[in-house]
Amino acid sequence: MDLDLIRKLTVPSESKIVFLVMDGLGGLPREPGGLTELETARTPNLDALASRSVCGCTVPVGPGITPGSGPGHLALFGYDPLHFVIGRGVLEAVGIDLDLGPDDVAGRGNFCTIDNQGRVTDRRAGRISTETCVRLTGLLRDRVRLPGVEFLVEPVKEHRFVLVLRGKGLGGELSESDPQQLGVAPLDIHPLSSAPDRAASQRTADLVNEFSAQARRILSGEPAANAVLLRGLDRRPSIPTMAEVYGLRSAAIAVYPMYRGLAKLVGMTALPSGTKLADEFDALEKYWKDYDFFYLHFKYTDSRGEDGDFDAKVAMVEEFDQFVPRVMNLKPDVVVVTGDHSTPSLLKGHSWHPVPSLVYSPYCRCDGTAKFGERTCARGALGTFPAVDLMPLAMANALRLTKFGA
Amino acid sequence: MDLDLIRKLTVPSESKIVFLVMDGLGGLPREPGGLTELETARTPNLDALASRSVCGCTVPVGPGITPGSGPGHLALFGYDPLHFVIGRGVLEAVGIDLDLGPDDVAGRGNFCTIDNQGRVTDRRAGRISTETCVRLTGLLRDRVRLPGVEFLVEPVKEHRFVLVLRGKGLGGELSESDPQQLGVAPLDIHPLSSAPDRAASQRTADLVNEFSAQARRILSGEPAANAVLLRGLDRRPSIPTMAEVYGLRSAAIAVYPMYRGLAKLVGMTALPSGTKLADEFDALEKYWKDYDFFYLHFKYTDSRGEDGDFDAKVAMVEEFDQFVPRVMNLKPDVVVVTGDHSTPSLLKGHSWHPVPSLVYSPYCRCDGTAKFGERTCARGALGTFPAVDLMPLAMANALRLTKFGA
Repeated sequence: MDLDLIRKLTVPSESKIVFLVMDGLGGLPREPGGLTELETARTPNLDALASRSVCGCTVPVGPGITPGSGPGHLALFGYDPLHFVIGRGVLEAVGIDLDLGPDDVAGRGNFCTIDNQGRVTDRRAGRISTETCVRLTGLLRDRVRLPGVEFLVEPVKEHRFVLVLRGKGLGGELSESDPQQLGVAPLDIHPLSSAPDRAASQRTADLVNEFSAQARRILSGEPAANAVLLRGLDRRPSIPTMAEVYGLRSAAIAVYPMYRGLAKLVGMTALPSGTKLADEFDALEKYWKDYDFFYLHFKYTDSRGEDGDFDAKVAMVEEFDQFVPRVMNLKPDVVVVTGDHSTPSLLKGHSWHPVPSLVYSPYCRCDGTAKFGERTCARGALGTFPAVDLMPLAMANALRLTKFGA
Repeated sequence: MDLDLIRKLTVPSESKIVFLVMDGLGGLPREPGGLTELETARTPNLDALASRSVCGCTVPVGPGITPGSGPGHLALFGYDPLHFVIGRGVLEAVGIDLDLGPDDVAGRGNFCTIDNQGRVTDRRAGRISTETCVRLTGLLRDRVRLPGVEFLVEPVKEHRFVLVLRGKGLGGELSESDPQQLGVAPLDIHPLSSAPDRAASQRTADLVNEFSAQARRILSGEPAANAVLLRGLDRRPSIPTMAEVYGLRSAAIAVYPMYRGLAKLVGMTALPSGTKLADEFDALEKYWKDYDFFYLHFKYTDSRGEDGDFDAKVAMVEEFDQFVPRVMNLKPDVVVVTGDHSTPSLLKGHSWHPVPSLVYSPYCRCDGTAKFGERTCARGALGTFPAVDLMPLAMANALRLTKFGA
């Protein structure tokens, strides 16, 4: 749905919406003819909720398209992930809890090894330790001098770091210096043909190239990490906030920084929480009065799927199920249970499969789905439908959208 | 899905995809409350495959829109038929196995009868024999002189022929000379307002008008076929090939030239094959190693539907069903069974009805559909969905698409 239309139809309300997001929720049977992880799991609370809900399976980006976490979450929040594209650098930055301003340009960096001819011999510098990464980013932070801009160099993990340029007149959509192969020199960075402001992007490319050149001099004595490669350099996308579009005071409860970061990109407040699932529900209860919309993220369904551990993913779903009554005790007006994409343990990674989803409210027109699972949801009244439709449906069920036209 | 996006996500693979296309597959019950042709047919092999597949019904062009063979097939191959429009002349040309270059302009011709005032008295020249058509097109080929371009005049059947202009600087999107009524003179051809290069299209219109004028002089002694009418004059659409979009080495197995021609328009190789269904499956086996994607077309489900012969269409489906095990023995990674449109024998022609379809792969998340039919597929997990989504789904199931976004 067009966000402008939703914005125009939004009306004030006291109603509260909760999105319970199990990362990578959808799955596949272990063997042909079997049950998926979710279908295998004993989920009495989710099943009871499904029977009071309208159910369906969401398509995060499009048929056959396997979404990354960024696109998957934007779709859940109602933002077309083909329109709002998040660069890798931005995602990496929000993933380490860096707050990006609208003018910042963020890129993902690798320490790498080059030989005395300047040719890359190891794109990951032998996967240096995170400690070394912390030391080297400190070195670059102290010694690099860039004219007219601030910059941040922050360690991520092992050979990975984030570079943020901060200042006026910067531009995004830059090429990358990583040649993606060995035996050739790092590439010069230049604006992509799609860059909206070529002059600003050229200036930014010049600054990044200068950063890389200085880094090479500063690191020349290092045994492995003697140069840097940069990619995914872009500004953060210009996204209207949840407050602007939906009139919602919205909050995120998520353990991993990347998901808090994604939520902050659309204007949510990231609430403090411990790292256990019980802690996340504690936070929900604690801040219940202060917000209209809660996004609660559970990471480990995805993690166990990525591990290829079917039984462990089943156990994660069962663990989550036990907390559903605590949500219902808060008397939310609308509850959505869904995932940002599927992560079948059979595939050990994200997949294109639609994601089982339910929308509960007193007005949802429940469809009699008795069990929360892939096949039962696909036969639900919502059928197989775009994930971006969840927010308008939740808003409608919260009685927060007025009539279109007379 | 946007073809550019699919192109960007495409990754190399050894996996093989087979599209089994029964022309005009979808149908209607003979009487209210009855079964369709497909539902009536005994199809143990398709039913067994459906039970291992994810099922749905495809909408080739849009709800309520009855597709011709061109749009129906473009949609199957993932090309939006509302965006890629194939002119009638181009379709007629590929239908007689003419290979069109990107600069050629093709039009569909009719021999017609005009009176001594130049007014059309029979738009089909009394449906002259194909023999006469062959003789008259030979006459035009020998005697017409057009400055600066080559041209082809090829007989089709009865009063129908194809005109192709070949040369630099030609333009498409032309009006037609067929007045579509009797008692008026053929119309002058001119560029349509939508023509992208008006000068080139004007020059082409002049050439076609000159062709028509010369034809009238050359044919003036003929008793019936003493003039020509031309329509559907256009260049072939600029379509990225299956190799460009999907990275697939693709091949077509089809008995009728029009379907081979449609496949060639998207860059497929048309494989040699005998005319029996068994011959088509022989070709599939013979060339199995050489291609990644096979489109196998079966014409007679449509033909018997067009005849209005319910039982004969049932028999065609049953014949096709027997060959399914030969496909499965090849161990394809993905099999799609579908049609390009519906042809209910009740309507004796193409129709707008969604087409029963299945997608089989080890990763398809099968939905428990026990019988391959219109109503069972409509209740499948794919629901009723656009036919252009089949290719992205097949590509995903073949593990040939990487993740979108991080």
